[in-house]
Amino acid sequence: RIDGQRLWRSLMDLAQIGATPKGGNCRLALTEEDRLGRELVTGWLRDAGMTLGVDQMGNIFARRAGRRDDLPPVVTGSHLDTQPTGGRFDGCYGVLAGLEVIRVLNDHGITTEAPLEVVIWTNEEGCRFVPVMMGSGVHAGIIPLEDALAAKDRDGDTVAASLERIGYAGDIPMGSRTFGAYIESHIEQGPVLEAEGIAVGAVTGSLGLRWFDVVVTGQEAHAGPTPMLYRRDALKRAAELIGDILALADPHQPHGRVTCGEFELYPNSRNVIPGRVTFSVDIRHLESSTLEQMEQALRDACVRHSELGKVTVELRDVQRVPPTPFDADLVNLIRTSSDTLGIPYRDIETGAGHDAVFISRVAPTAMIFVPCEDGISHNESENATPEDLEAGANVLLHTMLSKAGV
Amino acid sequence: RIDGQRLWRSLMDLAQIGATPKGGNCRLALTEEDRLGRELVTGWLRDAGMTLGVDQMGNIFARRAGRRDDLPPVVTGSHLDTQPTGGRFDGCYGVLAGLEVIRVLNDHGITTEAPLEVVIWTNEEGCRFVPVMMGSGVHAGIIPLEDALAAKDRDGDTVAASLERIGYAGDIPMGSRTFGAYIESHIEQGPVLEAEGIAVGAVTGSLGLRWFDVVVTGQEAHAGPTPMLYRRDALKRAAELIGDILALADPHQPHGRVTCGEFELYPNSRNVIPGRVTFSVDIRHLESSTLEQMEQALRDACVRHSELGKVTVELRDVQRVPPTPFDADLVNLIRTSSDTLGIPYRDIETGAGHDAVFISRVAPTAMIFVPCEDGISHNESENATPEDLEAGANVLLHTMLSKAGV
Ligand SMILES: NC(=O)NCCC(=O)O
Ligand SMILES: NC(=O)NCCC(=O)O
Repeated sequence: RIDGQRLWRSLMDLAQIGATPKGGNCRLALTEEDRLGRELVTGWLRDAGMTLGVDQMGNIFARRAGRRDDLPPVVTGSHLDTQPTGGRFDGCYGVLAGLEVIRVLNDHGITTEAPLEVVIWTNEEGCRFVPVMMGSGVHAGIIPLEDALAAKDRDGDTVAASLERIGYAGDIPMGSRTFGAYIESHIEQGPVLEAEGIAVGAVTGSLGLRWFDVVVTGQEAHAGPTPMLYRRDALKRAAELIGDILALADPHQPHGRVTCGEFELYPNSRNVIPGRVTFSVDIRHLESSTLEQMEQALRDACVRHSELGKVTVELRDVQRVPPTPFDADLVNLIRTSSDTLGIPYRDIETGAGHDAVFISRVAPTAMIFVPCEDGISHNESENATPEDLEAGANVLLHTMLSKAGV
Repeated sequence: RIDGQRLWRSLMDLAQIGATPKGGNCRLALTEEDRLGRELVTGWLRDAGMTLGVDQMGNIFARRAGRRDDLPPVVTGSHLDTQPTGGRFDGCYGVLAGLEVIRVLNDHGITTEAPLEVVIWTNEEGCRFVPVMMGSGVHAGIIPLEDALAAKDRDGDTVAASLERIGYAGDIPMGSRTFGAYIESHIEQGPVLEAEGIAVGAVTGSLGLRWFDVVVTGQEAHAGPTPMLYRRDALKRAAELIGDILALADPHQPHGRVTCGEFELYPNSRNVIPGRVTFSVDIRHLESSTLEQMEQALRDACVRHSELGKVTVELRDVQRVPPTPFDADLVNLIRTSSDTLGIPYRDIETGAGHDAVFISRVAPTAMIFVPCEDGISHNESENATPEDLEAGANVLLHTMLSKAGV
């Protein structure tokens, strides 16, 4: 059984790196804070006797030998990067629950048949560099390595340069590692488990996601002398368009989401009529067909607002991830493990993208969710109880053991 | 008579400093570009035989002695700072038209009764540092010197530190200089003169202006798992509120304006529901009573949107400048000068704030407008014809001579 206190201490120690005033974390992918987080955790993984390797995307693989090293490893893990105002659990829990599994096995001198691995994926959050879930996407052959390495942040810094800078441009070729199974534990990041008082979610699959950028172009002009009728105000039209876009997900139906999370005004001066607005659109749904309808409605809205004249509206594709079901047998194993441990569980789907979504294309994959306070995540106040985190890690332990064989 | 080509050349030479790719200028107040602009123009003023002084706000006074130095000077001028995507004429024309007046008088060996001065005001644009029209506002005793010096840009840099850095923290005490008259020439920055084919506007006064900041606070949360009904999306409410605010000025009535020119989203991440939006509001009107009604409607809209729940809306006062009539006798002198020169003119009010608006509280003040292309200003493509600029400068020359006496 997991040592819940040790797991909690590791989480809190890691949360010291990139700590924010309101109790959260800012460890943007491939920054100095990310490097410090990686150093701390890889130190722990080495102390636990694991062998480390880094691939060309900076993904870190820590391996614990099995009795039969010809078998593909049973893998767990997640990511250490955070949102600009992120919490202490998103991603870190999945990595440190994996570490705790290894520590417990070490405590009891247990060797598994198949090897075990803990993996730390690069840039899961996708907020500094797009695409999101980058390291796992390249590993799974979904995102081309060259595209990922060439991705730029807002300041023009690339993934390749950042990997070099923090010393994580590794040499393991992409796609050279095969997983027997991949099981990722994570906080739910939504309100369901907490509301129902259930400790564990057996994640059956994920919503599909489509990302876009919208560019509204008008004409900057002086805020004082320019009569209202002469204006080509990009913000005015963008505000109306955002109203239409945010209505694309029916709030009374589950499974539909729409968010505009990034927004930039140009030239952004108090006495200049905005000449250009750029904003992001994130739409998600469990059904491909509805996702498709939402995208079509988004396209229609952009055309409609462009045809109103005075400003132009351009829609740019950024990324798309289809709705992804997880491996039925592995999900079932999570249910069985929870039952065996007497831990209440329910089936749930994930609204967040996870590295598991991409890995599911190349290995049997499932996820274990635990509740988080008020369902709040991507927020400095993100919180979870030591008890729930321990319960989830116990389910992870038992599922990995069943899968790897003792 | 003015040398129109010399005036145009000076404008184009100055426009080399902080030149932008699209043919405009970026010389934000008290930056290195501003310093270079000041050095170039003060060099020209010195070459024209003028005596220079700098006050505690970095305002530059260039003086040409009169026959009677006991008389208060007849002053012209404007500013050299620009918007981030500004044009080549806004402000610069007023300063360089003043320089050209001096050069013409030198060419003809004319000495006036009263001394003449050309003044360069600090931070007229108000986009890097608020309040707007800062140098003239402090000179006129409307803005306290300490407040102005303590004003910060977005990076926390102060006016005081920036003045030191560029070497323009002068020693002339504020308020120690008295003007006999102040006449500022400027491009119209609106469409009226061009549309009517009239070379000169005799500016009778300015719209009143009120500046505010609005802060909409919701709660950041994950864009994927957070159901639509649970969201406290600051951008959603801000977009609706901006729609209401931009409708505050009736587009079919003249004299009313409303602009939201600055907009900042927090945490500004693609997969985070926006937790906070901050934006600026600029309302203007010729009538104090209507301006008051517009402000009240703005306050009501903020309260209404706050009362809808989920997010809070806070309104912060930033600056207010009342509608300002210019000096009737001086406006009349501009009309007479235009008539004498055979230059077509019309009365006009200014929608833009100008240093003249603040100076009018401490000296007889008026302005001379010339047309600008398509009425576009605060835009890199801002343009004006050499002929119109020359006509305006001739009216300035004759008005200054009438006022100063030959
Ligand atoms: N788990 C998580 O926060 N993933 C970020 C990717 C997403 O936007 O869903
Ligand atoms: N003339 C000019 O561009 N002034 C800037 C101040 C304003 O916003 O009106």
